[in-house]
Amino acid sequence: MAYKVAVAGATGYAGGEILRLLLSHPAYVSGELEIGALTAGSSAGQAVAELMPHLSPLADRIIEDTTPEVLAGHDVVFLALPHGHSGPIGQALSSANPDTVVIDCAADFRLQDAGEWEHYYGSEHAGTWTYGIPELPGHREELQGSTRVAVPGCFPTGATLAALPAVAGGLITPDLAVVSVTGVSGAGKKASVGLLGSEVMGNLKAYNTAGKHRHTPEIIQNLAEVTDAEVTVSFTPVLAPLPRGILTTVTAPLVEGVTQQIATETYRAFYADEPFIHLLPEGQQPQTQNVVGSNYCHVQVEVDERSGRLLMTSALDNLTKGTGGAAVQCMNLALGLEETAGLLAVAVAP
Amino acid sequence: MAYKVAVAGATGYAGGEILRLLLSHPAYVSGELEIGALTAGSSAGQAVAELMPHLSPLADRIIEDTTPEVLAGHDVVFLALPHGHSGPIGQALSSANPDTVVIDCAADFRLQDAGEWEHYYGSEHAGTWTYGIPELPGHREELQGSTRVAVPGCFPTGATLAALPAVAGGLITPDLAVVSVTGVSGAGKKASVGLLGSEVMGNLKAYNTAGKHRHTPEIIQNLAEVTDAEVTVSFTPVLAPLPRGILTTVTAPLVEGVTQQIATETYRAFYADEPFIHLLPEGQQPQTQNVVGSNYCHVQVEVDERSGRLLMTSALDNLTKGTGGAAVQCMNLALGLEETAGLLAVAVAP
Amino acid sequence: MAYKVAVAGATGYAGGEILRLLLSHPAYVSGELEIGALTAGSSAGQAVAELMPHLSPLADRIIEDTTPEVLAGHDVVFLALPHGHSGPIGQALSSANPDTVVIDCAADFRLQDAGEWEHYYGSEHAGTWTYGIPELPGHREELQGSTRVAVPGCFPTGATLAALPAVAGGLITPDLAVVSVTGVSGAGKKASVGLLGSEVMGNLKAYNTAGKHRHTPEIIQNLAEVTDAEVTVSFTPVLAPLPRGILTTVTAPLVEGVTQQIATETYRAFYADEPFIHLLPEGQQPQTQNVVGSNYCHVQVEVDERSGRLLMTSALDNLTKGTGGAAVQCMNLALGLEETAGLLAVAVAP
Amino acid sequence: MAYKVAVAGATGYAGGEILRLLLSHPAYVSGELEIGALTAGSSAGQAVAELMPHLSPLADRIIEDTTPEVLAGHDVVFLALPHGHSGPIGQALSSANPDTVVIDCAADFRLQDAGEWEHYYGSEHAGTWTYGIPELPGHREELQGSTRVAVPGCFPTGATLAALPAVAGGLITPDLAVVSVTGVSGAGKKASVGLLGSEVMGNLKAYNTAGKHRHTPEIIQNLAEVTDAEVTVSFTPVLAPLPRGILTTVTAPLVEGVTQQIATETYRAFYADEPFIHLLPEGQQPQTQNVVGSNYCHVQVEVDERSGRLLMTSALDNLTKGTGGAAVQCMNLALGLEETAGLLAVAVAP
Repeated sequence: MAYKVAVAGATGYAGGEILRLLLSHPAYVSGELEIGALTAGSSAGQAVAELMPHLSPLADRIIEDTTPEVLAGHDVVFLALPHGHSGPIGQALSSANPDTVVIDCAADFRLQDAGEWEHYYGSEHAGTWTYGIPELPGHREELQGSTRVAVPGCFPTGATLAALPAVAGGLITPDLAVVSVTGVSGAGKKASVGLLGSEVMGNLKAYNTAGKHRHTPEIIQNLAEVTDAEVTVSFTPVLAPLPRGILTTVTAPLVEGVTQQIATETYRAFYADEPFIHLLPEGQQPQTQNVVGSNYCHVQVEVDERSGRLLMTSALDNLTKGTGGAAVQCMNLALGLEETAGLLAVAVAP
Repeated sequence: MAYKVAVAGATGYAGGEILRLLLSHPAYVSGELEIGALTAGSSAGQAVAELMPHLSPLADRIIEDTTPEVLAGHDVVFLALPHGHSGPIGQALSSANPDTVVIDCAADFRLQDAGEWEHYYGSEHAGTWTYGIPELPGHREELQGSTRVAVPGCFPTGATLAALPAVAGGLITPDLAVVSVTGVSGAGKKASVGLLGSEVMGNLKAYNTAGKHRHTPEIIQNLAEVTDAEVTVSFTPVLAPLPRGILTTVTAPLVEGVTQQIATETYRAFYADEPFIHLLPEGQQPQTQNVVGSNYCHVQVEVDERSGRLLMTSALDNLTKGTGGAAVQCMNLALGLEETAGLLAVAVAP
Repeated sequence: MAYKVAVAGATGYAGGEILRLLLSHPAYVSGELEIGALTAGSSAGQAVAELMPHLSPLADRIIEDTTPEVLAGHDVVFLALPHGHSGPIGQALSSANPDTVVIDCAADFRLQDAGEWEHYYGSEHAGTWTYGIPELPGHREELQGSTRVAVPGCFPTGATLAALPAVAGGLITPDLAVVSVTGVSGAGKKASVGLLGSEVMGNLKAYNTAGKHRHTPEIIQNLAEVTDAEVTVSFTPVLAPLPRGILTTVTAPLVEGVTQQIATETYRAFYADEPFIHLLPEGQQPQTQNVVGSNYCHVQVEVDERSGRLLMTSALDNLTKGTGGAAVQCMNLALGLEETAGLLAVAVAP
Repeated sequence: MAYKVAVAGATGYAGGEILRLLLSHPAYVSGELEIGALTAGSSAGQAVAELMPHLSPLADRIIEDTTPEVLAGHDVVFLALPHGHSGPIGQALSSANPDTVVIDCAADFRLQDAGEWEHYYGSEHAGTWTYGIPELPGHREELQGSTRVAVPGCFPTGATLAALPAVAGGLITPDLAVVSVTGVSGAGKKASVGLLGSEVMGNLKAYNTAGKHRHTPEIIQNLAEVTDAEVTVSFTPVLAPLPRGILTTVTAPLVEGVTQQIATETYRAFYADEPFIHLLPEGQQPQTQNVVGSNYCHVQVEVDERSGRLLMTSALDNLTKGTGGAAVQCMNLALGLEETAGLLAVAVAP
């Protein structure tokens, strides 16, 4: 019998990306996975053809309301809802469907510290689910068979994958300056003057600066898992004129004696068995166009002797490895499928 | 034994796109198709990792010289070379390897009329191969088992697919005004001041106007196959700031009595069995973002009563359905594989 | 005593553009023109610094409500309001301030035919004011000293300036196929999912096709002024990923005997004394980047013998020559200032 | 008698920008300044109309060869040549025309330390001229009446203006992490595959990282002028898909006791009399679209208590305040004209 999969918030960018990936997933192609309920808020009642014309194989499917009833009876439920909405529905689904794999793409179940949640999101903490970066030591094992998964934020994924080997390997003092330049789809599909094409094309701006961005504590939480030292993060997101892609640059004080060779070897060893992380050849920096539409993350590390800092960079697609691809990767692990199933397509470049 | 496939001109945009698609092709995944020689001109000797970092599964492959010797011994050879270069090498390959399927992505073997070739390309005509638009009546059958295929130009594909049912169905007088707005990858990966990012972003320009564009006779040739009336084409390509995608608008005088219902029905019937052509619901116009990275072509037809013209529009990705995807679709037909194999991934939107 | 100028709808793109141009206007710099009330709807009460940070010399000015009272007592009032809003307020201002120069940037007072207005805009026709394309024969004279001016639409300006000499000079049968590719600022500064950066970047789409666009009757009205033949227009606007700029392509059947030389001479003679219209050298097509931020319009004409059509093209900035610059040009004429005052800055290219 | 001004390298982006600004300069408009020789390398002999169609008032001017003879006899010579080319020609002009104001837009005369020059540029150091950031303490006075001016690099201008008050005011330990996101025109108008529109649109990449960028020593040199502490700079430039604009983010360790109020007051006081530097209201971050095409630089400073760092940001147009506008500002100072003459136009936004 096939796995039955629902997507709540199917008409947003994250939901659409999950559906795009599922349509190419070998389990879907072979009939072992079927796409069940697609739900949304105000677009319920409309056809996929009107809302997401690129998903032509699903053109005639009608969007339903996001309710626990509609989402019941599935083996997997992806929640691709706004922050704060996942909490209640995730809890309701959990108690009513203990065996369903629920994979939340919002922030609601990511943070371990309820105080941090309340400080950054201003509401009651819904709980902490298995955190979905399989590349973070120990997490792959936790994700195998988990039924409650919190998909990481796009910026935390980029920053974590860039800095992880350096923090874990003690190459740096973990006092990080993180600047992440991002495409605009990360802000979602909600109408807003500041995100109009006229406002973003030809424009660059930093926003939610100086510790205000909600992804800051999530970056700290991830990196603190692999070091005993105190992790501090200065995080500056910059909005740039492209739909998809995040380029993250991290610098931090080099530990004395760390050479380029040590840094490269540390990264190579750390990511040797990771199917989606590519450490680039020396001298080559990550470019978002080489990962767009794919689940890959390109990484580089470079010693800057003169400034005494290590530069760690990563490029990923915020909707794929940064959200929808990560969600499918977590589903594969949770269901015991091949981890890379449906996720091996390379980037659409240029 | 596996089919062995070579790509000549592998480092250009068309070659890279063919490789991107082959890497997800079920025959490649199952081992029934293997990627053999990858060749180029000045980049011979370099690794794929340096030239096309998005093709990470081929990262360590070394680019070879484009010679008949290197290309010999393959079951399929894709030629993704500049116009004028395919002719001689295609002829050499043909005589030395009569059974090899040679699929040319350049213009060299597209035109039936040697005079037109010489007028537009200024050199001797190399010949005419099976023309690779399976949606053009009779061509699918010719492509099945063909060993010499000319992949169509990106603009002719867009204009042909937009206007074909109307011309074949006699909805219009075939005196066509075609305006195609295109992304810049169609111009290839050769350094040029006019194609610098600074010059194309924030810019729109028409070019090779008033009959000068080399794709004009190819559009006429295609549409003339389905009508006895004389086909004339005013073709205006416009360069716009995006990497991929062509939006084609065609207008022509309506034949009296043609209503919206007749037009829609004609298109629906014509494309009913085509796996890659989607006639959109009434009232919805094609958008390139809904086909980017995919082999789909979205089509719409609309009666403009007041001006007495029919509007026919299409959107496709110039590198996929416009080149690399068409090439793989032709390979599938030539080898007797499923026509849609490796080509069903939907667009990466937004 | 200085002219006192108000801008209603100051916080939209058209209003902001008028202010940008006024700040560099020699009459403003010399103190002969002062900027009075700036008004808007929901942003009333906010400072310019928050809403339009680029207008730094006006940073501390507070936006007021758009009411006849606030707008009274000015020598010039620019109305940069949504279509349908200008009608009532324009009428109220007119009766209360007969000597004030009122310059409306919306469509409300453009059309002569009340039936066309009602068909396209669905409300009662507010009236017809002096139409502000000085390059249209007779209009410059009407604008001199006019106190009620309707600034033309951006598409009608592009199409009219491209085709005017050909229609007036009888080079073509005026059965026009017009395709205008436009940047997104023409759609205004209102939040909308379809205009989000994620939706417009990497995308091309036709919209309001097949006679549905409201600018269609305005194009016909303009060109009908210079010919006795019936003018028909098939108008296809295409949205492209850039903030500003419209590239218009017009084709129409050539009258027999019209050569390239005749066409070029006709255009050269027609625009010989126009300060803002540049007929490009033969062989060079207009590019929007060469007019962006300026009041110039670049024009080209080309005979396409094979298709029997004339290609007429123009490039302009929809917010400058297409709206705000045209409005200031009309103000100059209305006040008896130098027509080009404040409008001679060349484009910001690249 | 009018000042006669030549531009060497007139057809590049910097040269074109200087000409754009001169055409609106009040001294040009009044006839007190005239544009003399325009020179270039390979484009000598062509008309401005073919090379820079936006400069329509100069359309018929013919580009001459860049030789000391052609450039002789001018009151002002702008050198907008590639790095390494300015040195010899600047020296030749200097000895032959001691009274001519020579303003070099390349790097050749910027650095004080010959060793740094040789390390970063690999050739013999040509010398050190008056460095053209008037906002740097003491430099405005030096520029008044100077005849040898080195226009600063675009990145050093952005980083210096962002961090200057903090370094001078002792708000931070000057161990700076600088990330500058830039449009592509900074790379110049030379054909290159990596700068093709297809490669830069939809892409983000860091380049010349980890101390390799030649602007690194220039940033250090500037900031070291206002502090006794050792200045270190980790500099990461990121290429983004827009033609113009640099957004610079700088972070550095906060000195204990520095509050947001102290930081804001320090910046406000430092830039109080600067005509082109706008400290934005608290809570508002700089955006490049608000300075594009203008000589303004928008600046913000923000205390990030949790990470213990100060965030300093700036936005400027790399071709205006970053090159051509700075050059004209320096010319104004050198000639004793009003410093802001011809430079007060606000940005073309959106």
